[in-house]
Amino acid sequence: MWYPEREDITIYGILAALSDPTRLEIVRKLAQNEEQCPFDFLDIASKQNLSHHFKVLREAGLVKSRYEGRNKFIWLRRDIIDEKFPGFLDGLLNAVEKSES
Amino acid sequence: MWYPEREDITIYGILAALSDPTRLEIVRKLAQNEEQCPFDFLDIASKQNLSHHFKVLREAGLVKSRYEGRNKFIWLRRDIIDEKFPGFLDGLLNAVEKSES
Repeated sequence: MWYPEREDITIYGILAALSDPTRLEIVRKLAQNEEQCPFDFLDIASKQNLSHHFKVLREAGLVKSRYEGRNKFIWLRRDIIDEKFPGFLDGLLNAVEKSES
Repeated sequence: MWYPEREDITIYGILAALSDPTRLEIVRKLAQNEEQCPFDFLDIASKQNLSHHFKVLREAGLVKSRYEGRNKFIWLRRDIIDEKFPGFLDGLLNAVEKSES
């Protein structure tokens, strides 16, 4: 599976990936946990749509995944995002939360 | 000229509008000043391209403009963006600045 390298992750790609309601919701959920199974997101979108959204998030550099036996685990690449664009993700997630309250 | 109302401005529209390098650059420049003339952005894009980008930014709710005689002035709708999505714009602009240093 292809993942962008640190230097290929751009703020433009990240902004575009997050400009979709479903993907922003996925990232908000991922931000609350270490890692999660794809099943955990079936309340947000169908299995097929999730595959598409995870692909877009992965190609933007926002998520990574690993297999443990037959189980898949997905996590937010917080380390690299926070290092490259310090404060961006927290600023966005806080703003979205406040805008809903 | 059409401007979205406060309640029609979404974080998705804002993220999509800012996912373009030229538009993000325009917004960074606007964030440094009260208001500016379109001419001030000719180092970023051509007149024709600027028209398009200002339209996208306007429709996302990010900018407004006014005429004073024959002069046009454009400004960032910081009041409404900061009120709806507190901390988002500062977080993004800071992160972009840090990522370049």
